Amino acid sequence: MTEMEKSVDSQLMTPGHRTLQKRFYRLRNNKIFEWFVISIIVFSALMIGANTYDMPPSLVSLLKVLDFGITLIFLVEITIRFIGEPNKKRFFNNFWNVFDTLIVVVSLIPIQDSEMAVLGRLVRIFRVLRMVSIIPELRLLINSLVKALPQLSYVMLLMFIIFYIYAAVGSTFFASINPVLWGDISISMLTLFRVMTFESWTSVMYETMAHYPLSWIYFLSFIFFTAFAFLNMVIGIVVNVLEQERQKIALEESEELNEPTMAELKQELDEIKQLLKQQNQQG
Amino acid sequence: MTEMEKSVDSQLMTPGHRTLQKRFYRLRNNKIFEWFVISIIVFSALMIGANTYDMPPSLVSLLKVLDFGITLIFLVEITIRFIGEPNKKRFFNNFWNVFDTLIVVVSLIPIQDSEMAVLGRLVRIFRVLRMVSIIPELRLLINSLVKALPQLSYVMLLMFIIFYIYAAVGSTFFASINPVLWGDISISMLTLFRVMTFESWTSVMYETMAHYPLSWIYFLSFIFFTAFAFLNMVIGIVVNVLEQERQKIALEESEELNEPTMAELKQELDEIKQLLKQQNQQG
Amino acid sequence: MTEMEKSVDSQLMTPGHRTLQKRFYRLRNNKIFEWFVISIIVFSALMIGANTYDMPPSLVSLLKVLDFGITLIFLVEITIRFIGEPNKKRFFNNFWNVFDTLIVVVSLIPIQDSEMAVLGRLVRIFRVLRMVSIIPELRLLINSLVKALPQLSYVMLLMFIIFYIYAAVGSTFFASINPVLWGDISISMLTLFRVMTFESWTSVMYETMAHYPLSWIYFLSFIFFTAFAFLNMVIGIVVNVLEQERQKIALEESEELNEPTMAELKQELDEIKQLLKQQNQQG
Amino acid sequence: MTEMEKSVDSQLMTPGHRTLQKRFYRLRNNKIFEWFVISIIVFSALMIGANTYDMPPSLVSLLKVLDFGITLIFLVEITIRFIGEPNKKRFFNNFWNVFDTLIVVVSLIPIQDSEMAVLGRLVRIFRVLRMVSIIPELRLLINSLVKALPQLSYVMLLMFIIFYIYAAVGSTFFASINPVLWGDISISMLTLFRVMTFESWTSVMYETMAHYPLSWIYFLSFIFFTAFAFLNMVIGIVVNVLEQERQKIALEESEELNEPTMAELKQELDEIKQLLKQQNQQG
Repeated sequence: MTEMEKSVDSQLMTPGHRTLQKRFYRLRNNKIFEWFVISIIVFSALMIGANTYDMPPSLVSLLKVLDFGITLIFLVEITIRFIGEPNKKRFFNNFWNVFDTLIVVVSLIPIQDSEMAVLGRLVRIFRVLRMVSIIPELRLLINSLVKALPQLSYVMLLMFIIFYIYAAVGSTFFASINPVLWGDISISMLTLFRVMTFESWTSVMYETMAHYPLSWIYFLSFIFFTAFAFLNMVIGIVVNVLEQERQKIALEESEELNEPTMAELKQELDEIKQLLKQQNQQG
Repeated sequence: MTEMEKSVDSQLMTPGHRTLQKRFYRLRNNKIFEWFVISIIVFSALMIGANTYDMPPSLVSLLKVLDFGITLIFLVEITIRFIGEPNKKRFFNNFWNVFDTLIVVVSLIPIQDSEMAVLGRLVRIFRVLRMVSIIPELRLLINSLVKALPQLSYVMLLMFIIFYIYAAVGSTFFASINPVLWGDISISMLTLFRVMTFESWTSVMYETMAHYPLSWIYFLSFIFFTAFAFLNMVIGIVVNVLEQERQKIALEESEELNEPTMAELKQELDEIKQLLKQQNQQG
Repeated sequence: MTEMEKSVDSQLMTPGHRTLQKRFYRLRNNKIFEWFVISIIVFSALMIGANTYDMPPSLVSLLKVLDFGITLIFLVEITIRFIGEPNKKRFFNNFWNVFDTLIVVVSLIPIQDSEMAVLGRLVRIFRVLRMVSIIPELRLLINSLVKALPQLSYVMLLMFIIFYIYAAVGSTFFASINPVLWGDISISMLTLFRVMTFESWTSVMYETMAHYPLSWIYFLSFIFFTAFAFLNMVIGIVVNVLEQERQKIALEESEELNEPTMAELKQELDEIKQLLKQQNQQG
Repeated sequence: MTEMEKSVDSQLMTPGHRTLQKRFYRLRNNKIFEWFVISIIVFSALMIGANTYDMPPSLVSLLKVLDFGITLIFLVEITIRFIGEPNKKRFFNNFWNVFDTLIVVVSLIPIQDSEMAVLGRLVRIFRVLRMVSIIPELRLLINSLVKALPQLSYVMLLMFIIFYIYAAVGSTFFASINPVLWGDISISMLTLFRVMTFESWTSVMYETMAHYPLSWIYFLSFIFFTAFAFLNMVIGIVVNVLEQERQKIALEESEELNEPTMAELKQELDEIKQLLKQQNQQG
């Protein structure tokens, strides 16, 4: 959005709107307001936890009332955030704002259907994720994780290819031995993931070794390949993180000290030599 | 405590006290005294180990006498430390001094009650931790671990949120399948911790897959998220440690060599150029 | 191949050949051609996956026709690559070209024998690996993994020696207890690999401890040694990767900035001093 | 051993001895001799492996003859090494020489007793370790591992204290529940090691939770503490290794380039300024 669009956006607002926007903007950035919202989220999380225990009917109806209250508070809060936002269009460009709005809107839908009841419970559970949207440090953590993913995409593709090939081989040979583990390619991939986590992998192996005595080669090579690819991925992340750290430090150093470079020193020396040579010629 | 308070503290002591303090201070820092205390702690640890074996009654009563002796020695030792401390108020500011005193005081309480007997045994076991309070290297290790914790607090909060959401979802859907594993949110979190350690996680998954064939998504996504958060935590610690190392090295280098900076060299060059220009004007 | 051989190679080609070569060379490096081949490989991979499910006979015969089509497309593609290659001899020096050609040639062999049918299926599965040969980033990943291997050869030899000695000791003492786990040295090595992955290792240990109460020393020492050797290997890889990163950065820095070295500065200073001394003598 | 002692050592040898020593010294460092010994060790290792399989009596007696031959070759080899050594006293200062001699001497003892037969087999197995003593790269690896150990001694002591305290608490509370796992402090430590490797740790925990519902705190805190201590140990090793790498690089750089330091440059500049000031005064 250019500056011009922004001013158009402002002109559309009546003066009353603008005062409201400024007041809500200040409220939104208020520390007490923030802590109030966080405590409501924590309370809502505790209620979700309480719901998993057996409770007397009176408490259940109380929780329903409280849940409605929390939904209302969230609705008011989102409205304040939206009105407080100076640039309305930018509001929905932020993933977390969209997420918050969606969670609140879906919470408002009255539920009769038992199918929908499950969805309603899920939405209430995902409200806990509002914690991430409200605490900037957590938002930063998630962002850095998301940013790291594309760099790892090729290692993950390679790992998927390894899984796919081994799963195809596995279901070709072992499907008749144990269809529960090797029935088709998707079940085989799940079994291979299990082998990768070392979860009772020997019982899987001993079963196939009864028919194919050399099938230990299949399992050991799979473990080696995935371990190697996994190690590669971890090292990739570590090197990335260290690289970012180094660049941050280098930037800070160059900014803080503002030290002259070697090249600058050399230039000065050349100038001095020039001066001296002139003197010698004069002398 | 300011210097003035300290001198007041000293004035309250009679000259006799002061000589005692100095003598005990020297005793406290004596290597032989330290090794004697360490050997008593080791002996006390061996006694605790011996207590877990079946023993003839005569040995049991002998151990009781020895235990009383050890408690007395510890009492004397703490007293020496306290009297030897030049600044009494600082003595209880140190966590380890408070810990040592508490352990010894609770050991002194005579036990009749069977409830209390267990507490008595526990206190005797925790005496082994006095090893940490007496060996400076171990104290340093613990301190560095404690210092690292707050920096990791946000990653740990994120992990807790992941656990909480998955546990809520898990007990919503799977509680009817196996209440022992998914009965309420706290049991579900324990089950998820078990899944995170890959401990028979497939048997947990296969059970839920019998009812919800797509529940493998729940488990695999949980493993990926926690593994990612865990990896993030480990990298955070590694980067921190390397950062501290780098700063320590940078500090040592700048202190030891006391090398001139590039900026200082540049200043010198500017002065020389100035001198040369003056000459040229004179010439 | 020297330049002369290359020109001879070119002279042997008729002008018509040369035009074809150039046209195919351009086709080979065409982005659309590349994406077409990748999509065919992905489609072939999906067909392999589909083969592991139960299918109606009509679909099976359809898949056979499609499989023949894919084989033909691959044959045409390899032929284009080969003709497009300016230097025919270099074509088969590349591991991936040989691999691709072999996969396609074996796919062409008509299969009647049931023994050979399995080989035919395997070859079709390994076609998925053509993904690696066509995407340069994956080829790079594999190459870097292969390059890392020889540096780790001594750690792997040490690990093998540890495994061999422990397997020999294990089958000497435990073969009579459980021949399924400790029957001979190769079975023992498999059992030890299982112990290394912590897969039900305690049940293996408790069984031997019933006969040799001190055999926990055998298992714990093995776990320590292999964990240590493994750790050493991982650290070796990490240090290697970081080292390569550092060299790459150092190279980039020196190339980009083209900064004068300290030694060059010193030489300039020496020249200036020389000039000044001359002046002083003249003066 | 001083130079004088060495010359005395030489004087005691007749000229004939000295020629023999030189000839054997040359033989010892011969590449062919080395590869011959390595191949004998590999052959001896294969024989040990063969011994774990069931064999016909004729092969058993053949192996006995071959084993005697190998022992003889090793005896000759050690003798050559000893005579070839210019400084006899230093020969037995080397751990690996002592190890080799011991292995060969014990192999020579004729065995009738069945008790001794096991020892004889063990000694033959440990011959494989001669691989380490003969290949310098493996010897280097082992040495670096041994050198890393003392630096980790405090973390290992801390880990032992954690184990000891938890084992004492465990056998106090859980001995009555399952004496096989928690009978006394040493069995409890083994059980805790098992918990640390995540080997069926939940079955251990669920058993105790039936009596003490809060005992999950015991297990989870133990896992956290040991994981933290373990992580600390790994980081300690990594930092150490990186530190050594950095020092090696720094040493190489300073040796190779022989670059002047900033301090040297500053001194030169000061001298130049001095010269200029003299000129100005003269002028």
